[in-house]
Amino acid sequence: MSVVYEPIGVIRSSFTKLEGMPIQPVGAGESLGELQLNDEFAPGLVNLDGFSRCILIYHFHKSRGFKLKVTPFMDTVQRGLFSTRAPKRPNAVGLSIVEILSIEDNVVRIKGVDVLDNTPLLDIKPYVPRFDAWPEARCGWLETNAEKAVTISSDDRFTRGDIP
Amino acid sequence: MSVVYEPIGVIRSSFTKLEGMPIQPVGAGESLGELQLNDEFAPGLVNLDGFSRCILIYHFHKSRGFKLKVTPFMDTVQRGLFSTRAPKRPNAVGLSIVEILSIEDNVVRIKGVDVLDNTPLLDIKPYVPRFDAWPEARCGWLETNAEKAVTISSDDRFTRGDIP
Repeated sequence: MSVVYEPIGVIRSSFTKLEGMPIQPVGAGESLGELQLNDEFAPGLVNLDGFSRCILIYHFHKSRGFKLKVTPFMDTVQRGLFSTRAPKRPNAVGLSIVEILSIEDNVVRIKGVDVLDNTPLLDIKPYVPRFDAWPEARCGWLETNAEKAVTISSDDRFTRGDIP
Repeated sequence: MSVVYEPIGVIRSSFTKLEGMPIQPVGAGESLGELQLNDEFAPGLVNLDGFSRCILIYHFHKSRGFKLKVTPFMDTVQRGLFSTRAPKRPNAVGLSIVEILSIEDNVVRIKGVDVLDNTPLLDIKPYVPRFDAWPEARCGWLETNAEKAVTISSDDRFTRGDIP
């Protein structure tokens, strides 16, 4: 059974190519962007301004193919794909938690943007600490490597045709 | 541009109907379940056992239609859809953060399951506190209401044909 989604809008950012793009919002710092929803969805944004962060669900539109073992940006050895956030996945769905700066009509201004300009946006969910914040969670191979996301930038490994 | 995904497997749970189902993992407590991936994806699960939690991206397969203003389970007034986690959305994509108990071959045993049995699974991502834990985030209308998710159960409001 296929699942078919229609983007509700696009994510605008200053990143027009993967090289040099942050690989996580924690590395995106002051990087600004916008969620530009199709006009008809603007009423759904009401009340979202009470939240300081939201969860973006989007489509890695430049991702092609996948391998089940990948060498992530933050490591030097191969890892099982589902233990990574690599964009080449069986379903190329991306997730970023970003800061909400302001909302006007169909546009949400955001901070900490780690996605390519014009990425198709599938959904926005409010970030709720009671549901989503687990600061004590163990994180395997990322235990010592997650901090690298603050400084490491992307390269083109996840869009090359040869699937690294 | 439509986005087409093929489920990588299913989420098994003890919930065969919406009535009485937890509305968030925090209300699901000891509720156990399994991710049953299609066999070919099993190699992608390597290294995931180092993580105590994972993020499930799935399709609300019983959800039909949507409204941009909804009365959430945890409130008594209408809220903008994108400030809620209601399953009736333009793209019926769901997100749950669950505990990983064990992994064997293509099966991940999980705890804190708040989804219907046989829900189509689209992706699994490792939960990484450095990326995903923001305990101080403001959460608007859920500031005083989020705790209700620990005790409130679902009803059928999000699958009824009349779209409440």
